[in-house]
Amino acid sequence: MKAPWITYRPEIKVLDCTIRDGGLINDHLFEDGLVKAVYQACVAAGVDYMEIGYKANRGLFSGKFGDWKFCEEDDLRRIVGDNATNLKLSAMADAGKCEWRTDILPKEKSALDLIRVACYVYQIPEAVDMIKDAHQKGYEVAANLMAVSTVQEAELDQALEVLAGTPATTVVVVDSNGSLYAEQIEILVKKYKKALEGTNKEVGIHAHNNLQLAFANTIEAIIHGVNRVDATIAGLGRGAGNCPMELLLGFLRNPKFKLRPILKVIQDHFVTLRQNMEWGPLVPYNITGQLNQHPRAAMALRAGPNKDNYAEFYDKCTADN
Amino acid sequence: MKAPWITYRPEIKVLDCTIRDGGLINDHLFEDGLVKAVYQACVAAGVDYMEIGYKANRGLFSGKFGDWKFCEEDDLRRIVGDNATNLKLSAMADAGKCEWRTDILPKEKSALDLIRVACYVYQIPEAVDMIKDAHQKGYEVAANLMAVSTVQEAELDQALEVLAGTPATTVVVVDSNGSLYAEQIEILVKKYKKALEGTNKEVGIHAHNNLQLAFANTIEAIIHGVNRVDATIAGLGRGAGNCPMELLLGFLRNPKFKLRPILKVIQDHFVTLRQNMEWGPLVPYNITGQLNQHPRAAMALRAGPNKDNYAEFYDKCTADN
Repeated sequence: MKAPWITYRPEIKVLDCTIRDGGLINDHLFEDGLVKAVYQACVAAGVDYMEIGYKANRGLFSGKFGDWKFCEEDDLRRIVGDNATNLKLSAMADAGKCEWRTDILPKEKSALDLIRVACYVYQIPEAVDMIKDAHQKGYEVAANLMAVSTVQEAELDQALEVLAGTPATTVVVVDSNGSLYAEQIEILVKKYKKALEGTNKEVGIHAHNNLQLAFANTIEAIIHGVNRVDATIAGLGRGAGNCPMELLLGFLRNPKFKLRPILKVIQDHFVTLRQNMEWGPLVPYNITGQLNQHPRAAMALRAGPNKDNYAEFYDKCTADN
Repeated sequence: MKAPWITYRPEIKVLDCTIRDGGLINDHLFEDGLVKAVYQACVAAGVDYMEIGYKANRGLFSGKFGDWKFCEEDDLRRIVGDNATNLKLSAMADAGKCEWRTDILPKEKSALDLIRVACYVYQIPEAVDMIKDAHQKGYEVAANLMAVSTVQEAELDQALEVLAGTPATTVVVVDSNGSLYAEQIEILVKKYKKALEGTNKEVGIHAHNNLQLAFANTIEAIIHGVNRVDATIAGLGRGAGNCPMELLLGFLRNPKFKLRPILKVIQDHFVTLRQNMEWGPLVPYNITGQLNQHPRAAMALRAGPNKDNYAEFYDKCTADN
């Protein structure tokens, strides 16, 4: 096709993870008004899924965290009522941070539709058990293998082979460090698709914006066949943030998606939010992204008194000791 | 090659247009300290060209503009002295805004090395005369055909055929509206390369960041053979800004380029500058970019009292009357 972007691919489903990934900035302490506004904007915009937070275990974490670290049913219902909408609700369950056997209720007792199991490559064994458990409880399940830019290829091949045998319906390419270029996205998406061939599983993309490439890499992933796409309103998310929903919906051109409700919620809520929270592709995140390092050093810099000492931060990130 | 980004292409030359494109925000009223700091950072970083401003005609413009609208020799020398460095100096000459016969001096009387002739497609006839004139005066010359996303294909083919016959050594793909996706960049770069085949001319890229794609599109252009690349420090530039130099140099991996001087000048000058000037991929620029409109309506919005009324701005941009 000469201009493939002139039409759209109906198979593509969009997952909003504004509150879930944004919660990593503020210990999940969002006001209900904001969470409700995001929920309503997602419904109005025709977004397919909203991921509202984590299913972490209260016993494992101190009292400083907000409700969206735990996503208990009463808290969910406070926002979504009986969720009589087309928007499905998701929570992320991290291997090692979750008593999934008890914390994740049977589907019929929960407002949640989708459980996304997140793990590092060394946690694959527990992740597989978690995926099976959530599936048996009646949920749609996705597998998010984090920080793929740091995983050795042989390990990744093994992990994908194992995940191909689970009941997860989606496996997500997760660029936690925000360090991948489009050519690497292409290679990974092709690898994931090949490993999952014949399983009917979809490949997803979760991009971070450290190099101002989250939107571009999301497009690249879509071009190579990804049909499950993460985005956040105003790009809200840890550190450099994520692929902005307002850019993604404009690109997709599927008439079921409406851009205006997203613009309205940014106008009404995110302009103010940005006065109290910081996210986006600032220079320290550019640096850790280029170096394929976790953004935690950059986040610490931005929280301290020398937040604009970029050159010294670069020296530190590139020092051999 | 399995990982082509692991090495570098020595033919790629980088042009800094921080002060030139940034000058479109503040009527070219930069303090000398900043202009000198950018110059010194470009020298230290190994950047190939610095474009400092325009060669507009003083008689055609009112007194509100700063020196970098005109780039007269005394002003240039105030910043660069005799420029005994490897950094070449550039000025842009817009068709229709310049008395080029007299305003552009013979090369031996000027600190400038490169003249970039910018024109819209209907101005090609004058641009050709300007290119020939600058070449005869001894300059390296580039041709920047602006707003290519709005040009009909048949016209573009004609324009490229004409430019192929001029002494310009570079023809630049210019995404003035910041509306192009990577696939469109690929098509344009291939078209430009084909039209210029056998002429020894290089293709360049000048991206705007309306869709957070300036860096991604610059990479895409490089992948398809572009060897002349525009970038600006901290992405400074009109509206949404340009491809950030600090991202580009990290990507290029040519050891002649040094990232640290760019980080240092951002730290020392651009953090403060951002308190007084606004640029970057804000929502109104996202909107005009997606709609392939000139950013002037978004710039006007941001200068007014309703600068965050994104939904109403979207309504206005998409209205039929």
